[in-house]
Amino acid sequence: MGEIPSYKVYEDDEVFAFLDAKPINPGHTLVIPKEHHKDLYEIPDETLKKLSVAVKKVAMSIKKGINPDGINIGMNNETAAGQVVFHAHIHVIPRLKSDNLEHWPGQELSKEESEEVLTKIKIS
Amino acid sequence: MGEIPSYKVYEDDEVFAFLDAKPINPGHTLVIPKEHHKDLYEIPDETLKKLSVAVKKVAMSIKKGINPDGINIGMNNETAAGQVVFHAHIHVIPRLKSDNLEHWPGQELSKEESEEVLTKIKIS
Repeated sequence: MGEIPSYKVYEDDEVFAFLDAKPINPGHTLVIPKEHHKDLYEIPDETLKKLSVAVKKVAMSIKKGINPDGINIGMNNETAAGQVVFHAHIHVIPRLKSDNLEHWPGQELSKEESEEVLTKIKIS
Repeated sequence: MGEIPSYKVYEDDEVFAFLDAKPINPGHTLVIPKEHHKDLYEIPDETLKKLSVAVKKVAMSIKKGINPDGINIGMNNETAAGQVVFHAHIHVIPRLKSDNLEHWPGQELSKEESEEVLTKIKIS
């Protein structure tokens, strides 16, 4: 992104998908809404639905076309989450057993800590 | 998961969301379809649409409730992509500038390499 996407993977009326210019693995694709929305918070629900179906479509095509060992879906919202380009985009990343990419570690929270955060975010 | 989810963040007819038992950061929530689907490849489009709207709802609630510096959305499909529990689930992960979690590096592909992979995954 930040340049004309050269390698189009998929397009429909509202969604565009193209190869990431610096792929984590070959086939790494970005799925974006054609309309400008900065991040997940700003994407209208109807657009989000179309994006999610397109993400699955791209994942299935990667699965069929290059048969990776797995696929990660990822979306970074805001700088602290790794967002660099401020047009919402969803990463579809083929994974290989041999790529040795590590996942972030989890931590144990106490019952009190869990209950405290739950109170703040629970949707009633 | 793999146990009864104790800390419910959100529920509707088709979707359930609850605190991850080993959060990457406090507030880390998993959003799942109530119906069993193993991974993204197996989720029907209509269910996926509902999941995506629920993911946004949970993200907005985390944003409002604990005001993190960013939010990552993630989904691991198959063991090689970090999937451990084989009931599809989407991670909503609050991020902090201070958490120092690193993102996977990208690589440069040649024009030929990009075109080769594109041929395999392009959806016409």
